[in-house]
Amino acid sequence: MSDTDDPQPGLSRRGLLGFLGAGAVGVGAVAAGAAATTTRSPSFAAPAGQSTSAAQSGAAAIYPFHGEHQSGIVTPAQDRLHFAAFDVSDVTRAELQELLQDWSYAASRMMAGLSAGDLGAVGGAYDAPPDDTGEALDLPPAGLTITFGFGPSLFDERFGLASRRPAALVDLPHFPGDALVENLTGGDLCIQACSDDPQVAVHAIRNLSRIAFGRASLRWSQLGFGRTSSTTRAQVTPRNLFGFKDGTANLRAEDTALVDTHVWADGDDWMTGGSYLVARKIRMTIETWDRTSLREQETVVGRTKGDGAPLSGGGEFTEPDFSATGRDDAPLIAETSHVRLAHPSMNNGATLLRRGYNFVDGNDELGRLNAGLFFICFQADPRTQFVPVQLSLARHDAMNEYLRHVGSGIFAVPPGATQDSYVGAGLFA
Amino acid sequence: MSDTDDPQPGLSRRGLLGFLGAGAVGVGAVAAGAAATTTRSPSFAAPAGQSTSAAQSGAAAIYPFHGEHQSGIVTPAQDRLHFAAFDVSDVTRAELQELLQDWSYAASRMMAGLSAGDLGAVGGAYDAPPDDTGEALDLPPAGLTITFGFGPSLFDERFGLASRRPAALVDLPHFPGDALVENLTGGDLCIQACSDDPQVAVHAIRNLSRIAFGRASLRWSQLGFGRTSSTTRAQVTPRNLFGFKDGTANLRAEDTALVDTHVWADGDDWMTGGSYLVARKIRMTIETWDRTSLREQETVVGRTKGDGAPLSGGGEFTEPDFSATGRDDAPLIAETSHVRLAHPSMNNGATLLRRGYNFVDGNDELGRLNAGLFFICFQADPRTQFVPVQLSLARHDAMNEYLRHVGSGIFAVPPGATQDSYVGAGLFA
Repeated sequence: MSDTDDPQPGLSRRGLLGFLGAGAVGVGAVAAGAAATTTRSPSFAAPAGQSTSAAQSGAAAIYPFHGEHQSGIVTPAQDRLHFAAFDVSDVTRAELQELLQDWSYAASRMMAGLSAGDLGAVGGAYDAPPDDTGEALDLPPAGLTITFGFGPSLFDERFGLASRRPAALVDLPHFPGDALVENLTGGDLCIQACSDDPQVAVHAIRNLSRIAFGRASLRWSQLGFGRTSSTTRAQVTPRNLFGFKDGTANLRAEDTALVDTHVWADGDDWMTGGSYLVARKIRMTIETWDRTSLREQETVVGRTKGDGAPLSGGGEFTEPDFSATGRDDAPLIAETSHVRLAHPSMNNGATLLRRGYNFVDGNDELGRLNAGLFFICFQADPRTQFVPVQLSLARHDAMNEYLRHVGSGIFAVPPGATQDSYVGAGLFA
Repeated sequence: MSDTDDPQPGLSRRGLLGFLGAGAVGVGAVAAGAAATTTRSPSFAAPAGQSTSAAQSGAAAIYPFHGEHQSGIVTPAQDRLHFAAFDVSDVTRAELQELLQDWSYAASRMMAGLSAGDLGAVGGAYDAPPDDTGEALDLPPAGLTITFGFGPSLFDERFGLASRRPAALVDLPHFPGDALVENLTGGDLCIQACSDDPQVAVHAIRNLSRIAFGRASLRWSQLGFGRTSSTTRAQVTPRNLFGFKDGTANLRAEDTALVDTHVWADGDDWMTGGSYLVARKIRMTIETWDRTSLREQETVVGRTKGDGAPLSGGGEFTEPDFSATGRDDAPLIAETSHVRLAHPSMNNGATLLRRGYNFVDGNDELGRLNAGLFFICFQADPRTQFVPVQLSLARHDAMNEYLRHVGSGIFAVPPGATQDSYVGAGLFA
């Protein structure tokens, strides 16, 4: 690696040059908002017409890379996802830091609509590989966010990080019914790339993988084609592959007090302002589901299929009444329904910020679509949020008959980086 | 199957009722064009505000199911793809016909923005499985096209179709370098679903698979996240995962004389007005490509990476000058470049209508993205078009170092259906 011959305690040479460069362009280049559509022009000019106004939706949306929190958590959920987990190779602690610096630099550029590296896809030496793979040339970032996380396995003796492992970064327990596949599980590092344009999300993961060459390699990865969560009130509730509205009761970015309590990690260590990400690849046996009655489907979910209203009555956003009963005094919302078991009132108030995506990965040898939900959630502490909720669901949820958890990961998502630093710098301080 | 107790020589009962229903709604319901965004409302009303004006682009676009040709061939290439190949089960010829009728009926509904079946996702009996899986409720069709094809293996003694096999529906030869995987190859039937919304394309394939239950099963399938071809002049040339503009020299719908000659099958048999589809799943070794110089990349392609101009000079749409030479009288466009070998002038004038998509299917065990190009082309006769062009490319193309053909299929795509019939009816006449 050409940048490792002059190690720095803080930024690598590439990183240092890069951040200075970004500073010269001005804060606007990586701040929220763009007044005009931004393209990666072959001449690599800074995005034109940028302002610091609130980010627009659609192709022109640009979110800030730097800040108190990483983007991609409470950011309005984009339509498409490329998620990747990495194993760190046999490198030194300093080389791991440099990788994170290089990733931060490239991510800050790509989120701003620039190429992954200073020289871009066609601006470098003719006899050298380009600095960017090029498939996002001409494309605006379409709200691209790139969010980095650290898995439990990073905190071992390889990098002298064992003592820095947060208590909340637990190893997930085995949940009843888990059918985890080794090569869809775990990882030292993760990157969540979300954009309204899948080509932009793929371009981000591909270029970050390329930058990691020799330092970290892809362990597993997942494309999601359609979001199943709304993270702001302005977004319409989308549907999962069971055909039901999903995420009606999700935390929303506007609920700032709830977000402060349930999403952002507290304490005064390097994770302050960070969050914990749990990812689960959940295969749905949709062919079986499709042959069940509408009654069975609604009973399992606890909501109507059309409007997404709780079976206790009202509209989509009416609070479920779990005490309401019907014929023979049976509860209108079944004891084993998903909506009941997942509800905060049944989980000591525990709630999660979900950011899920539908996936289809071809089909299996029996002609069944390999389809389901790539579940992502963010939280302040998995020990009191994802783990107990999922234990309850895994034990009792009637939906389990139609689900199989095949992939899993938990990651500490550090706070956002300041302009002169990189994501995760606090871990090495 | 509840609809097979009253077999009809023409339409099944479901099909007959369905087509009458569609007729009663009016031609506009399945004709090109919608003046307003169309949604699958739970009440299954006919799309409101439709007219017979030209189809709009974007979410509101609706293309006709019925007509001289099937939609999805010269239709402006939509952004997303779900392609599926099926094996027909042990059914009778009459049951195969009924499957095609049921598919045509459901496809005509979904392309018009309606649910897959009359009763929809929530309008049927509470104790029966819904008529539609529901994940596209609330979504406009976003230009959905559903295109059906018949593979060579359909034309055997099972269905008495051996004598109806078109001469142009050849078995593809083994091309040098082919690394085909059995379960990504072949199929009795295929369905190409394209839409600007991937959830709508997935919904179409999923519901058509569901309707086929017991009669045909998925053999292989592929999602494409980004188009790599323009089929009309109004579309910007997109980029493939090599980072180059792809399809600059593609046939366009506006070139009606060329399309008549090179896309639509001729003769006076049941394929008149049809076309032949060849699909190739081409894995790109992008990690190797990303480490080659810009010079090597442009030499292999024969065009510049930034603008897509031929290396003989000019702009993207300048005709390549294969006789132009530079230093040492070497050709500016290399003898083994992709653009030269694929050019009609090097292939007895053979040209193809391409409709390709980028794909990423996770990664392999070595951490390489399983990514590439899902190549689809349409043509009047593969014997004089795809086969000789691909033979030349497979033998000489410098790009082969970075490609591996892993999946393959060839399908006869029958003409469009009339309002009172179904796709493929001519095959059984």
